[in-house]
Amino acid sequence: MPAAILAIGTEITRGEIVNTNATWLSTELTSAGFSVTTVESIPDELDQIVDTLKRLGAAHRFVIVTGGLGPTTDDLTALAAARAANVDLVRDDNTLLAIRRRLESRGAVMNPSNEKQADLPAGAEILPNQNGTAPGFALTIGNATAYFMPGVPKEMKPMFSEQVLPRIRPSASNNAHQIVLHVYGMRESAIGEALAGVEAQHPGVTLGYRVHFPECDVKVHAHAGSQSAAHDIAQRAAAVVKAKLGDSVYGEGDDAFPEVVGRAVRNRGYHMAVAESCTGGLVSHLLTSYPASDYLIGGAVTYANSAKTRLLGVAEDTLRGHGAVSAEVAAEMAEGVRRLCECDVGVAITGIAGPSGGTATKPVGLVYWAVSHPGGTIVKDRVFPGDRDEVRVAAAYAALDLLRRVVAGLPIR
Amino acid sequence: MPAAILAIGTEITRGEIVNTNATWLSTELTSAGFSVTTVESIPDELDQIVDTLKRLGAAHRFVIVTGGLGPTTDDLTALAAARAANVDLVRDDNTLLAIRRRLESRGAVMNPSNEKQADLPAGAEILPNQNGTAPGFALTIGNATAYFMPGVPKEMKPMFSEQVLPRIRPSASNNAHQIVLHVYGMRESAIGEALAGVEAQHPGVTLGYRVHFPECDVKVHAHAGSQSAAHDIAQRAAAVVKAKLGDSVYGEGDDAFPEVVGRAVRNRGYHMAVAESCTGGLVSHLLTSYPASDYLIGGAVTYANSAKTRLLGVAEDTLRGHGAVSAEVAAEMAEGVRRLCECDVGVAITGIAGPSGGTATKPVGLVYWAVSHPGGTIVKDRVFPGDRDEVRVAAAYAALDLLRRVVAGLPIR
Repeated sequence: MPAAILAIGTEITRGEIVNTNATWLSTELTSAGFSVTTVESIPDELDQIVDTLKRLGAAHRFVIVTGGLGPTTDDLTALAAARAANVDLVRDDNTLLAIRRRLESRGAVMNPSNEKQADLPAGAEILPNQNGTAPGFALTIGNATAYFMPGVPKEMKPMFSEQVLPRIRPSASNNAHQIVLHVYGMRESAIGEALAGVEAQHPGVTLGYRVHFPECDVKVHAHAGSQSAAHDIAQRAAAVVKAKLGDSVYGEGDDAFPEVVGRAVRNRGYHMAVAESCTGGLVSHLLTSYPASDYLIGGAVTYANSAKTRLLGVAEDTLRGHGAVSAEVAAEMAEGVRRLCECDVGVAITGIAGPSGGTATKPVGLVYWAVSHPGGTIVKDRVFPGDRDEVRVAAAYAALDLLRRVVAGLPIR
Repeated sequence: MPAAILAIGTEITRGEIVNTNATWLSTELTSAGFSVTTVESIPDELDQIVDTLKRLGAAHRFVIVTGGLGPTTDDLTALAAARAANVDLVRDDNTLLAIRRRLESRGAVMNPSNEKQADLPAGAEILPNQNGTAPGFALTIGNATAYFMPGVPKEMKPMFSEQVLPRIRPSASNNAHQIVLHVYGMRESAIGEALAGVEAQHPGVTLGYRVHFPECDVKVHAHAGSQSAAHDIAQRAAAVVKAKLGDSVYGEGDDAFPEVVGRAVRNRGYHMAVAESCTGGLVSHLLTSYPASDYLIGGAVTYANSAKTRLLGVAEDTLRGHGAVSAEVAAEMAEGVRRLCECDVGVAITGIAGPSGGTATKPVGLVYWAVSHPGGTIVKDRVFPGDRDEVRVAAAYAALDLLRRVVAGLPIR
């Protein structure tokens, strides 16, 4: 069943934001068995929105629309939808009440621009928004049911998953199944080489690759005569992929790398602490993006040398003799934070994130990371390519991967 | 001058890759003075490519196309372009030679699928590819000149910058100017209310709003008879916007909130440290996303109570009497980290990020943040709505804003 995606917003056509909504919706619709025949983005221009809705509504059974439902004057989607469907815009009292309640529960007051968000096309089916003020709605335009959702991803995604997808799913020809495997520690080209031949050995299977630095996803997509057959084929192919890539596959589906690493620490029954210099708190931030209070004691961000000495007990001799960016200091930081927080494992990072601070012998991108644990202290180093952000993210992931390998008993590399 | 962008590739409509080409091209075209009226992505389907090219060619002067020029059977763009322009596909000998040379220089051999890349629409102007085998080309389709480029970003970007942009730039009407103001601490709807009437008072100016939690951008876009007139009008309107929004406008253009806050600390000549509980290192991470070693000493992530006591010297009596999430503990954390790092300012956050851990008197979302400075210690609190991520980000921004106000001498709120 074909479906169209339409994003409304001048910030997209001007290139000010990446339309990640479209990618997410494309993935969701494809996995549900729809074929996305067009993904369009247009500016907040009333006539053009009306014309585009009419054209897409004439040629599709489903049109999925995001954006332009906000409270400001440049939000024109509801009005355009009404015109495209030849109906009036009417104020919906229930929606008005819901907006008022939401604002009041957050200590905000209702003003006329919020009231505008209750003006919806006559006859539209309202899709309540649990995560924002603007409701979504469904409306018949031409041959299509068009579903209108806010452009804010946090509001759009749950609205699509909980309200739109259940309504349209029965129309999908769902004879496909996809498994997404998450890989850290191999380049996309190396993954491709390792998986050469897998598609040929598994008819109906296509492999897709998606790099999102510093990880890569492998998508095992299977088509078959039925959903259950597709499911089985995908499972078999995914097992082969996992066997070929080994422990570089750290998870699948909704798994996130810091979450998987934290789970490994928890499962081992360890308590841990983190000492960060160039990553400035990123490792702690990543770990605590998921509940972590049962295994993470805390740690130190020791940006200045004085902090390394005072907080972690790094010896001034070590700092003078080897420099703050050295294997010796990384080891003393990991051991120091472990001692300071009285716990089983200490993780430490010190490096030169750039853009300045590099020298001939210690270039920008040079990072040392260490894990101190009951079996000893391991230090690794690398010169990471890329800008400040990339060096910091690459360093944080490298340290988390060493931690994962230590606590899960995987080979260190 | 309007322009359309079309990306061809099933990997995009299936959501397997993010169409970053479109964002990049939108930015380039917008800065060159074009107005991008539509950004479309369609699958590798011959008839649909032909129809879309005809439709876009009828309505635009320029159509910028990426993708589908590769050597495999699913690359159909050249054939579709020829059909849309009603011309034949002919093999171009110079292109064939260039492909052969490129492959041979890399030790590869020419095969029939590579030869296919030399089959181009009759009458097309060829755009040589310095970074890959597939050449680009320009072709008249309807009212438009359509420029076809490979989808690989490292081939497409130089081809656009060096060959396409110089050809189309003279047609751009560069009589627009845009100023982006960054706002923290006001809701989009409140900003909209405060700015009601600004557009009416400044003919040629449109205001745009973009929420990226917890900030909001106000885009002051001006159109006029000339670029310099547009520039002046935008400046005047931006000054009015800034006057109306006051110190909620923290910066403009490339400014980022943590960078602006760090700059304020640096300008005051202060050194600082951060103590974080529920935000787990996020404040430090945000500050150190920009060079910070000249003002940030470091800090502590004190997730467990034991870490609050051992690292920061928070009194056990205070923890017992008021709980870890309390104004008293926030103050002692800020004072403790300031003492620990021997610096001018200490920032601290303690709260309940959720999803669990809330009680009737201390619900999920309750956060205390404190700034200890030479003039005293200020503590603020709020129950932030939203999920774990939102609470953490909102708390980090609130603490950074208090820090900014303290060091810059702005009113505390």
